[in-house]
Amino acid sequence: MPDFTHSSIDFERLKERAYNYRWAELPEGVIPLTAADPDFSAPPAISEAISRYVARGPLAYGPALGLPSFREAVAEDLIKGGVEARASQVIATDGAASAMFLTARALLEPGDEALIFDPVDFLFERSVSSAGAHALRVPFDRQLGLDLAELERLASRPQVKMICLCAPHNPYGRLLRDEELREVGRIARERGLWVLSDEVWLKLRYERAQAHSAAFEGLSERTFTVSGFSKAYGLAGLRVGYVHAPTQAGLERLTQASHAGDTAFGASTLSQVAAVAGLRDCEAWLEAWLGHLHEARALLCGRLDRLEGLRCELPEATYLASPEIDYDQASMSGFDSASLAAFIMDRAQVGVVPGSPAFFGARAEGLIRFSFATSLELLSEALDRIEAVWGERAAWLAQRQASSAQLTNSAISRG
Amino acid sequence: MPDFTHSSIDFERLKERAYNYRWAELPEGVIPLTAADPDFSAPPAISEAISRYVARGPLAYGPALGLPSFREAVAEDLIKGGVEARASQVIATDGAASAMFLTARALLEPGDEALIFDPVDFLFERSVSSAGAHALRVPFDRQLGLDLAELERLASRPQVKMICLCAPHNPYGRLLRDEELREVGRIARERGLWVLSDEVWLKLRYERAQAHSAAFEGLSERTFTVSGFSKAYGLAGLRVGYVHAPTQAGLERLTQASHAGDTAFGASTLSQVAAVAGLRDCEAWLEAWLGHLHEARALLCGRLDRLEGLRCELPEATYLASPEIDYDQASMSGFDSASLAAFIMDRAQVGVVPGSPAFFGARAEGLIRFSFATSLELLSEALDRIEAVWGERAAWLAQRQASSAQLTNSAISRG
Repeated sequence: MPDFTHSSIDFERLKERAYNYRWAELPEGVIPLTAADPDFSAPPAISEAISRYVARGPLAYGPALGLPSFREAVAEDLIKGGVEARASQVIATDGAASAMFLTARALLEPGDEALIFDPVDFLFERSVSSAGAHALRVPFDRQLGLDLAELERLASRPQVKMICLCAPHNPYGRLLRDEELREVGRIARERGLWVLSDEVWLKLRYERAQAHSAAFEGLSERTFTVSGFSKAYGLAGLRVGYVHAPTQAGLERLTQASHAGDTAFGASTLSQVAAVAGLRDCEAWLEAWLGHLHEARALLCGRLDRLEGLRCELPEATYLASPEIDYDQASMSGFDSASLAAFIMDRAQVGVVPGSPAFFGARAEGLIRFSFATSLELLSEALDRIEAVWGERAAWLAQRQASSAQLTNSAISRG
Repeated sequence: MPDFTHSSIDFERLKERAYNYRWAELPEGVIPLTAADPDFSAPPAISEAISRYVARGPLAYGPALGLPSFREAVAEDLIKGGVEARASQVIATDGAASAMFLTARALLEPGDEALIFDPVDFLFERSVSSAGAHALRVPFDRQLGLDLAELERLASRPQVKMICLCAPHNPYGRLLRDEELREVGRIARERGLWVLSDEVWLKLRYERAQAHSAAFEGLSERTFTVSGFSKAYGLAGLRVGYVHAPTQAGLERLTQASHAGDTAFGASTLSQVAAVAGLRDCEAWLEAWLGHLHEARALLCGRLDRLEGLRCELPEATYLASPEIDYDQASMSGFDSASLAAFIMDRAQVGVVPGSPAFFGARAEGLIRFSFATSLELLSEALDRIEAVWGERAAWLAQRQASSAQLTNSAISRG
């Protein structure tokens, strides 16, 4: 039986293994609700598949584009979601992040422009700029979703070559609506644009269905679907993801842009074996995992929303809660994402990701992001700590501003 | 006890797992002595380390530059070889090939030049040109080694920024001599050049010692040492290697050039765990492996050398034999690397790598390359097949030339 209890978490190993602003990196005593990465062990079916694979037989060079079993399992999974996928159009990558960089490099040239959401995961801007291209921001509202008028206006610029979708959305956890996808499809078709759709969160939805972007008219022929296995299955360390290209020609562009043919690109065969086990043998595990996350979401968002000066909605997908500062509350005046995250770390010893422009874009200012991929007990403990110090926030900020002013004054008087 | 017998080879799994011109790709019945990749299973200590790691605990995000245990094990291994290595100057990569591409990108700019051997593994030219730079060839002779006079002459060109060493050498299996390394060090120091030293074969030496390049005066401060775990430990599928930078500043250049900080670069933590087990727990296994390869080398090179029209020397390192056509033998006139490899494939059903310029450079013309990382029985079978048809080679070539001429004529007459 899948086990997401507190006692199932191996904290000693988390301290050895969980990097990226988590247990192995933050000071002892801090609860890290930072990077989107589960505290739980990977599904047993995956560990078993790995052990079986290494027990006998060579660990020889895999095929440049991925193991046939991997490419087939990915295609089957996409087909279940309504995409006309083909195994021959899948390329295995060392993670979804890497898949985004590869797709940007394959489709964009220096001087090109790509449209990305604001706010959105930092990897969009990085992957576009690593291709020498420039990212333009399209507002994405937590309630209203994508600003389609602005998308259409920007898409008319001749330098624009690609629209990047983050669906489900990080940090809001919002799903794209069918009508949004249809409109994106129409605009992409009319302007002859490529679409990069990052769907790494798609298996972790709560109430509403969202289809794969590439299942929509106008999008199927132009969408490069990117995903990975770190979020749903907890395999971030194994570095495995993929791109599904809309056509054989698209796949060839990806292959060319990678160094796959030079044996200098791709995912570990063992990681691909793990991913296949995830796609094929973890249905019950995934259901239990979603059940647990459903409870964790209610607990975290409910209690955060009740804090004076914060508003926290339930995400429709992901294990990310991203409460926003309510500036109508005088007690929050002077706080921004960075100082609020610093307060929570300093006084409550809870690590969260500030909605700074560097991480998500300008429109993330005022939010902080919590990952809730952990036990209910640990979330409760983090919330207890935050609630216990919440009343001190204004005093903390005043104190900080005073010492900062003092530092500045003493620097001036010395100067 | 390590087992390199014929019966230990799992041919069914090789057909599923061994790509890169090997069992899974070549037609049924062909013996693939092509890509340098063992037919044997990985060392048991490695499989066990992997199974232990996945049995419990999260498979979370590893650190951007590699697990501390990985970086420490690599540094210890280099220190044993006389290098002043530091764990903090190691970056984990998804294979030695990837490490070469990364190093070239970190050190070269478009328009720069880099010196590479001729012949040499194709990855040198590819990695240099992927950085927008240009590779210049320095002759490397099987008997005489590196043409130091030509190296010095080319190193005086102002565009030259880097010397690339392949030591031990692929395809010749020749070790670099201490005096060669000292001279390279002097030239690199005098000209202020970087050195990329690919030492992926260094653990597989037969008679003679060769130190790590970076252990030499003039080289220690400028050498980026690249290696991986595919050749010695048979872990090509796991995609794990590293670069050791000569300084902290050098490491920062590598980090910048990678997308490690963006979670879009690096090696699977599981592959790093496998590599650590290789470096720390496989000494006896490696000794037995070398013992087996010693016998395989004698068998293969001895019988190839006795074939009329071929000369085959024993490699000093690697599991590569690279016999050359003896053009003093009239029976070989008309053969080049490609046609000889085609003859052996066509008539003997044995796959070898032709020494074509595309793989190794212009000076490889006339050689064919065999990997002998398999059982003595399989090598014997391959040699039996080649010996059985060897006498028919001239007739085969004449027949091929005649049909090719016929094709040309009929094309002309149709034209």
